[in-house]
Amino acid sequence: MKKSIEKIVSQALTEDIGEEDLTTNTTVPRDLRCRARLFSKDEGILSGMKPFRCAFELMEADIQDYKAMEDGAPFGKGDLLAEFTGNAQAVLTAERTALNFVQRLSGVATLTAQFVEKVQGLQCRICGTRKTSPMIRQLEKQAIVHGGGSNHRHTLFNGILIKENHIKMVGDIPEVIRRAAEGTHHLMRVGIEVTNLDEFDQALAASADVIMLDNMDIKTMCEAVRRAEGRKVVLEASGNATLDRVRSMAATGVQFVSVGSLTHSARSIDMTVLIDHV
Amino acid sequence: MKKSIEKIVSQALTEDIGEEDLTTNTTVPRDLRCRARLFSKDEGILSGMKPFRCAFELMEADIQDYKAMEDGAPFGKGDLLAEFTGNAQAVLTAERTALNFVQRLSGVATLTAQFVEKVQGLQCRICGTRKTSPMIRQLEKQAIVHGGGSNHRHTLFNGILIKENHIKMVGDIPEVIRRAAEGTHHLMRVGIEVTNLDEFDQALAASADVIMLDNMDIKTMCEAVRRAEGRKVVLEASGNATLDRVRSMAATGVQFVSVGSLTHSARSIDMTVLIDHV
Amino acid sequence: MKKSIEKIVSQALTEDIGEEDLTTNTTVPRDLRCRARLFSKDEGILSGMKPFRCAFELMEADIQDYKAMEDGAPFGKGDLLAEFTGNAQAVLTAERTALNFVQRLSGVATLTAQFVEKVQGLQCRICGTRKTSPMIRQLEKQAIVHGGGSNHRHTLFNGILIKENHIKMVGDIPEVIRRAAEGTHHLMRVGIEVTNLDEFDQALAASADVIMLDNMDIKTMCEAVRRAEGRKVVLEASGNATLDRVRSMAATGVQFVSVGSLTHSARSIDMTVLIDHV
Amino acid sequence: MKKSIEKIVSQALTEDIGEEDLTTNTTVPRDLRCRARLFSKDEGILSGMKPFRCAFELMEADIQDYKAMEDGAPFGKGDLLAEFTGNAQAVLTAERTALNFVQRLSGVATLTAQFVEKVQGLQCRICGTRKTSPMIRQLEKQAIVHGGGSNHRHTLFNGILIKENHIKMVGDIPEVIRRAAEGTHHLMRVGIEVTNLDEFDQALAASADVIMLDNMDIKTMCEAVRRAEGRKVVLEASGNATLDRVRSMAATGVQFVSVGSLTHSARSIDMTVLIDHV
Amino acid sequence: MKKSIEKIVSQALTEDIGEEDLTTNTTVPRDLRCRARLFSKDEGILSGMKPFRCAFELMEADIQDYKAMEDGAPFGKGDLLAEFTGNAQAVLTAERTALNFVQRLSGVATLTAQFVEKVQGLQCRICGTRKTSPMIRQLEKQAIVHGGGSNHRHTLFNGILIKENHIKMVGDIPEVIRRAAEGTHHLMRVGIEVTNLDEFDQALAASADVIMLDNMDIKTMCEAVRRAEGRKVVLEASGNATLDRVRSMAATGVQFVSVGSLTHSARSIDMTVLIDHV
Amino acid sequence: MKKSIEKIVSQALTEDIGEEDLTTNTTVPRDLRCRARLFSKDEGILSGMKPFRCAFELMEADIQDYKAMEDGAPFGKGDLLAEFTGNAQAVLTAERTALNFVQRLSGVATLTAQFVEKVQGLQCRICGTRKTSPMIRQLEKQAIVHGGGSNHRHTLFNGILIKENHIKMVGDIPEVIRRAAEGTHHLMRVGIEVTNLDEFDQALAASADVIMLDNMDIKTMCEAVRRAEGRKVVLEASGNATLDRVRSMAATGVQFVSVGSLTHSARSIDMTVLIDHV
Repeated sequence: MKKSIEKIVSQALTEDIGEEDLTTNTTVPRDLRCRARLFSKDEGILSGMKPFRCAFELMEADIQDYKAMEDGAPFGKGDLLAEFTGNAQAVLTAERTALNFVQRLSGVATLTAQFVEKVQGLQCRICGTRKTSPMIRQLEKQAIVHGGGSNHRHTLFNGILIKENHIKMVGDIPEVIRRAAEGTHHLMRVGIEVTNLDEFDQALAASADVIMLDNMDIKTMCEAVRRAEGRKVVLEASGNATLDRVRSMAATGVQFVSVGSLTHSARSIDMTVLIDHV
Repeated sequence: MKKSIEKIVSQALTEDIGEEDLTTNTTVPRDLRCRARLFSKDEGILSGMKPFRCAFELMEADIQDYKAMEDGAPFGKGDLLAEFTGNAQAVLTAERTALNFVQRLSGVATLTAQFVEKVQGLQCRICGTRKTSPMIRQLEKQAIVHGGGSNHRHTLFNGILIKENHIKMVGDIPEVIRRAAEGTHHLMRVGIEVTNLDEFDQALAASADVIMLDNMDIKTMCEAVRRAEGRKVVLEASGNATLDRVRSMAATGVQFVSVGSLTHSARSIDMTVLIDHV
Repeated sequence: MKKSIEKIVSQALTEDIGEEDLTTNTTVPRDLRCRARLFSKDEGILSGMKPFRCAFELMEADIQDYKAMEDGAPFGKGDLLAEFTGNAQAVLTAERTALNFVQRLSGVATLTAQFVEKVQGLQCRICGTRKTSPMIRQLEKQAIVHGGGSNHRHTLFNGILIKENHIKMVGDIPEVIRRAAEGTHHLMRVGIEVTNLDEFDQALAASADVIMLDNMDIKTMCEAVRRAEGRKVVLEASGNATLDRVRSMAATGVQFVSVGSLTHSARSIDMTVLIDHV
Repeated sequence: MKKSIEKIVSQALTEDIGEEDLTTNTTVPRDLRCRARLFSKDEGILSGMKPFRCAFELMEADIQDYKAMEDGAPFGKGDLLAEFTGNAQAVLTAERTALNFVQRLSGVATLTAQFVEKVQGLQCRICGTRKTSPMIRQLEKQAIVHGGGSNHRHTLFNGILIKENHIKMVGDIPEVIRRAAEGTHHLMRVGIEVTNLDEFDQALAASADVIMLDNMDIKTMCEAVRRAEGRKVVLEASGNATLDRVRSMAATGVQFVSVGSLTHSARSIDMTVLIDHV
Repeated sequence: MKKSIEKIVSQALTEDIGEEDLTTNTTVPRDLRCRARLFSKDEGILSGMKPFRCAFELMEADIQDYKAMEDGAPFGKGDLLAEFTGNAQAVLTAERTALNFVQRLSGVATLTAQFVEKVQGLQCRICGTRKTSPMIRQLEKQAIVHGGGSNHRHTLFNGILIKENHIKMVGDIPEVIRRAAEGTHHLMRVGIEVTNLDEFDQALAASADVIMLDNMDIKTMCEAVRRAEGRKVVLEASGNATLDRVRSMAATGVQFVSVGSLTHSARSIDMTVLIDHV
Repeated sequence: MKKSIEKIVSQALTEDIGEEDLTTNTTVPRDLRCRARLFSKDEGILSGMKPFRCAFELMEADIQDYKAMEDGAPFGKGDLLAEFTGNAQAVLTAERTALNFVQRLSGVATLTAQFVEKVQGLQCRICGTRKTSPMIRQLEKQAIVHGGGSNHRHTLFNGILIKENHIKMVGDIPEVIRRAAEGTHHLMRVGIEVTNLDEFDQALAASADVIMLDNMDIKTMCEAVRRAEGRKVVLEASGNATLDRVRSMAATGVQFVSVGSLTHSARSIDMTVLIDHV
C-alpha cells in the first residue's frame, strides 16, 4: 500500500515538475531549511495526509518534527492541519503536488460525510462507485472511508456486477446470471443491476446474490425491498442519489446506496502551505 | 501526443479492470459486435473525445463507423455525442473508463466556457493553473482550450514564476528576480507573484517580465495596471476568481486571469453509453 | 489477455536470449526461410499454443501457413502438433522458449486430465490452487481449463479465503468470518478452511459462504457434507489429493477438490521442433 | 544479484496478491507480530532460501531473529528449515509466494543431487540446460549448484552451441563451425551438437572446441571419446539422461552430462509455514 | 537530480555488465576489500565525480574513506583525483563504467574551459548546444558548467527557438514569431535564428526576444549588434565557433556564443583506476 | 535488434524533446509535408542510418520515398546522404536527435577506417573496446564494423578477460586463470591481460586461451609472439594504439590490436538536414 502511494505521488511530482523546478533551484539556497504549515481556508473532513507527506519525502525534504491531524478528522476554516520543518527547496518544489492531493481528497471525504450524515440512524451505508479520477481510485476510495462511507468493488476483477448493457447483449436475465455464476470461481457473488420490478423478480428467482435497484422511484424500491423479504439477497440503490434524495432512498430498506458524485463531482477544499525561516 | 494519451488511458484501464472484466468475459460471447451510442444527460462543452475513443481502441474493440462531435463543440441535454460499432466485450469493458474521461474533461471545458463568457469583449484571457487532477494535467489543459481558455506553464521546468514562499526564503524581491534571471537560460522570462503595491513596485523596478497580482482587491489591481503603463511587462491576476468576480478582475486591464477552480472543482457532466445489437 | 501473454513471452525470450543469439546470427543467413514442425515424443493434452506461437511472432518470424492443433486437444506419441514456415533465424532463436512453454503447460493439462478422469460421473470439479510457477500463473490456470479442470481465486485480491494461520492469529472462527464479511465489499463471498468438525460447525454457524475441508479423512468429510445438507454453503476438499485418493474425496459429496500438484509437480511433456529448408 | 532476486520475487508477489490481500487485511490487526516456522514434509536438498526470505522482506515484514538452514543443506521429513518473527499481515500475505519458490527450487536441488550421486567417483559433471521455468532461470541454475551440479551457458548470448537445426540450415559442418568462429569475438569457444560418428569426425576435424554427443547409444559415445583422445576438445553427452542411465553415460569418459529434467520435470518438495503468536 | 544520475549510471552499468561480471565473480573472493585510486594520465578540468562514485555505490561497494577532488577543479598529469576503499568485486565490476563517465565528462569540461579562456575579459558567455551524447545530456550540460560555460535550453519544451527550417516552412519571419508568441504561455521568450541582416531586421521589427546570428561573418555580426543598440533583445552567435575564431565572435558584442563541439567532439581525458589490497 | 534501436532512439527523443517541441508545434501547420535532405559538410564513412531514420519514424513522420546511402559507405564533403518526404512537424522535432546519432556514429566509423587502413596487408584486425558512450554501446560497436573493424566482448557477461587489477587481488596468475576456467561454463575461453614477459610466460604455461599484451613496447611484443609460436593461443595488443603506432603494433604478429579511442575520442562528422516544401 505504502509503495503504491509512493508510485502515484512520484508520477504526479514528475508530471508537475518536468525535469526540475527552475524557479526554486535558481533562487533558493540548496541547504536552507524552513518550517512549513498547512492551513485550511474552509471547513471539512481531512483526507490525503499520506500523499501530502509522501510528496515532500520523495523530494528528499528530510522532514523533521512532523505533526498533523489524521485522515478522517473534521477541521474548521483557518485550522492548522500539519506542520513540519524540511529542506526549503524540496518543500517549495513538492508543495503544489502535495496540495493537489490533500485538497481533492479532502473534498471527497467532506462530500461523503455530508451524505453519510443524511442517512444517520438508518441501517444503510453510503458507498462510492467506479466513477473516480483516473489513476487515483485507491486514494479516492480511502477518502470515502475517511468520510464515513463504504466502497464497492475496486476493479472489474474483484466483483461481478451485471449491468443493463450486459443484459441487453445476452437478452435473458436468468441466463446471464447463470453464465456469471458458472464462469467464475466459487468465492465470488453474482450481482445484477435492474431497473424495474419485472427484472427484479427474474433476478431474485435466478438467485442473484446482490441486486442493485437502478434509477427506480422510491415507491418501486420499497416494493422491491418487500418482495425480497426473507431471501438471502443484498439490495442496493443507485442513480440520482443527491443530498436531497438520499435519505428517502436509504429509508426504503436497501442496505446500500451508491453515489457517483462522491468522486466525480466533489469540489476541492481550499488550503495553503505557508513557509517560514526556521 | 497520441502516445501519451494512450499511456494515460492504458493506465486508467488497468486501474479499472485489474486483470480482467469478470462480468463481461463470463456473460457476453467473445465475437459479438454491438452498436454503442454516447448520450449526454446535461448541456455543456465537449472535451475528452480522444481518450474516450482511445479506451475502446486499447481494448481492441475494432471500431467501425465511428461518428462523433468534436472537442470544443457545445451540446444539449439528450444529445447524441458519438456512435460506433465494435466488439461487445471490448465496449463493455472500456465503457466506464471512457466515460470517466469524457465526463470529467467536459466538466472542465464547460466551466471554462462559463468563465470565458463572463469576460467577453475584454482584452483579457482566462487561463488554468497547476491545480489539476494528478496524472491527467495534459488532458485538463486541453479541456481548458476546448472551453476557450488559455494555459499557463505546464510544469515547473517550462516557466519561471517566483511565488510568495520563494520571496520569503530569499527576503528580497530584486535579489530573487536577479537570481532567477541569471540562473536559467536566456529563452526564459521571469515571472513573479506579488500581493501588494510595494512588492509590485519592486518587481517592476527589477524588470520582471511577468507580474502576477495575487489576491488583490480590484482597486489595487487598477492601480498596479496604471503604474505599469508604457512598460514591457505582462500583468496577470489570480486568487478568488469566481464567476461573479472574474469580469471585474479582467476589467482592471490585466492581460490574464488565472482560475484554479477550472480544474480543481469542475463537476462532471453526466453522460451514458447505450449499447444495442447490430 | 493477448497483451499479457505477449509480455510474459517477451520476458522469457529476453531471459533466454540475453542480447542476441550468437550461434544463429553468426551461422544462419539473415533472410533464409524454413519450415518448422512441432512433434510430441509423448502422449497428453495440449496447452500453450498461444505462447508457443507468440514466441516466434515476437522474434518477427513472419509466420506463414500456420496450422496447429488446439489447446485442449489430446495427442499421441509422434503426433505433429503444429507446423508453419518462417524466417529461419527467428525460428531458431525462439525455439527453446516456445518449447519451454508448450512442454510445461501441456504437462499441466495432461496431469489435470488424469485427475478429471478419476472423478468422472461425480458432481465434483477438480480445481487448481495458487501453487503455480512464478510469473506464469495465468497460463497455468488456462492449462488446467484445457485439461478439463476449474480454477480457484486467481489472486489474494479476487477472493477471500480464511486459512488456518488467519484463524490462529484471530483466535476465534466467528470473529474472523465477521471481520472478513464486514471488511470487504458486498460482491465477495467469505470462504474459510477448516481441519476438523468442530471448526466446521463454527464456520457453518457463522454463515461462511464457502468451507474448505482441509486434510480431513474421508469419513470426516462425509460427516461434514451431511451436516451441511440444506444449507446454502459451498464445500470443497483439499490436501493429499493424489490420483489414487481423489475419487473417494469427490465421492463424499463436496463440490470441489483442489489439487496443488496440478501446477507444482506436473512433468513436462517431451516435444521437439524440427526445421527444414522450404 | 540481490537486486535481480528482489525483482523476480516482487513480480511473483504482485502476481499472487493483485492489489491487496483482502483476507489478511480485513481479519488480522495491522501491528500484530507472529513467529513463523518453515517445516518440510519431505526429505531433500534445500534451495531458494533467498527468495523465501526476500518475499517477506518485500512485504516489509520487519523480520527479526531469522534463523535458517543454508541452501545446499540436506534435510529430513519434519525438519525445521527456518524460523523468524515478523509482522503477521506481511507474513500471511507473502507466505504462498515464499513457499512457491522454496518448494520448487528445493525440488530442483533434490533431483540434481540424485543425479550427482549416481555419477559419484567418475570424472564427469552433471549440468543443467536451458529447459528452465520461464523467468526464474537464474534461481533454477543456482538450485542445480546447490544440488551439486554445474551449469551450461545461461543465455544464447554467453555461449555458442551449434545444434542440429543450425547444421541443417547451413548444410555443412565445417562451414557452420567456421562461421561461428569468425562471427563472434575471440573470447568465445565454439560448441556443436552431433548425433553420429560421421558428424563427430567432421566437428573434430574442424577444430570445434566443444562437442556435444546428442542421443547417442553408449557404445557410440565410447567410440567418440576414443577418437578424441589427445585432442584439446571438451566432450559432453545429452539426451535420454535418466537416473537409470546417467552413470553409464558418464562412464564413457565424457566430461559433462547435461540433464533437462533437472529443471523441466522436478517435483516440488512439500513444505508448510506455521504461524504462532509471539 | 541525484535520482536521475542514479538511473543513468544504473543503465550504463547494466549495458556494460549484462547479467554479471564473470571474470570478477569467478576469480575474486566475495568479501575482499581493496583500496582504489583514480589517477589522471593527462591534464584538464574535472567533471563526472557524481556518476563516478555512483557506479560503485550502485554495485553496493560499501565505500569508505572516500576522498576526491571536486567537479570543476583543474588537475595535472599523474594527479590523484579520488581514492577510497570498498568491496573488491564491486569495484572491479563498476570500474569501466565509472571511468567511461568521468573521462568523457572531464573531456567536455576541459574543452569548455579552453573556449572560456579565449573570451576572457569580454562580456560574452560560452554556451553549449543540444548536440550532446544521447541519454547523458544532463551530465554534459553540467560538465559545461564545470568548465565555466553556460547552457542553452535543455529540451524543446523549455525554450522557443525558431530555426531556418521553421522559417522556411512558414515563409514569413513576422508570422512565425507571432505564432510562437501566441501559441505558448506568457512565461516564455521567443528566440529566432537568422543568417543575414535582412532576416535580422525582420526579427528585430517583430520584437523577437532573442536573436541568434547563425554562420555570419564577423563584420555582419558587428552590424547586427549595432542595429540592436538600445533595443531589449538578447543577441547570440553560433556556427563555426572554433577555438581560433571564438574571440573575434565574442568581441562583436553578442552576449552569447554557442559551441556545438563542446559536447559533440570533445576527446576523453585518459584516466586509470589502480587497486591495492587494504 | 530493431526493437533495441527503437528503444534507444525513443529515449534520446524524450531527452531532447521533453514534453513537446513548443517551437514547431506553435509555428508549423500540423498536416504540412516537407522534403528533407541530409547533407554532409565533411568526408568520412557513414554509420547510424538506422537510428537516423528511426527518429523520424518514432515521431510518426509518415516517411515516403526514402533514399539513403548505406552504413559503411564512404562519402565526400557536400554529399547528399539521405532524402525523404514526411510530415514537417515530425521532421523538425526529430531532426536534432537524428543528427546527433548519425554524426557521432559516422565519426566512429570514420576513425575506425583510418586505423584499419593503417594495418592493411597485415594479418591483424583492429577492434574496439568497452570505452564506449554510455547507453549506445551497441550502436558504436556497429559503427566500428561499418568502419571495417572488429569487436571485443560486448559485456562482462559474454567473455572472460582477467585484467591487472584481478591479478593483483588474487596475487597469482596460474591461480586466477584456474579459477576463471573452473568457475564458468565450458563454452567460454579464458583471456588475460599481461604487461611483461614474465607474466606472459605464466599465462602461457597456465593455458590461457587468449593473452592481451598491454602497454608493451614493440620489441617485447615481438618476443611474446615468438614465445607463443606453435601454441593454440590468441594474442592481442592494447594500450597507446595511436594512428602513428598501430602499424608497428600489428606487424609484431598479434592477431588483434584493440583501440579505445575509436569510441572514446572520435570527433562527430558535421552534417545538416535541409527542409523544403514538397
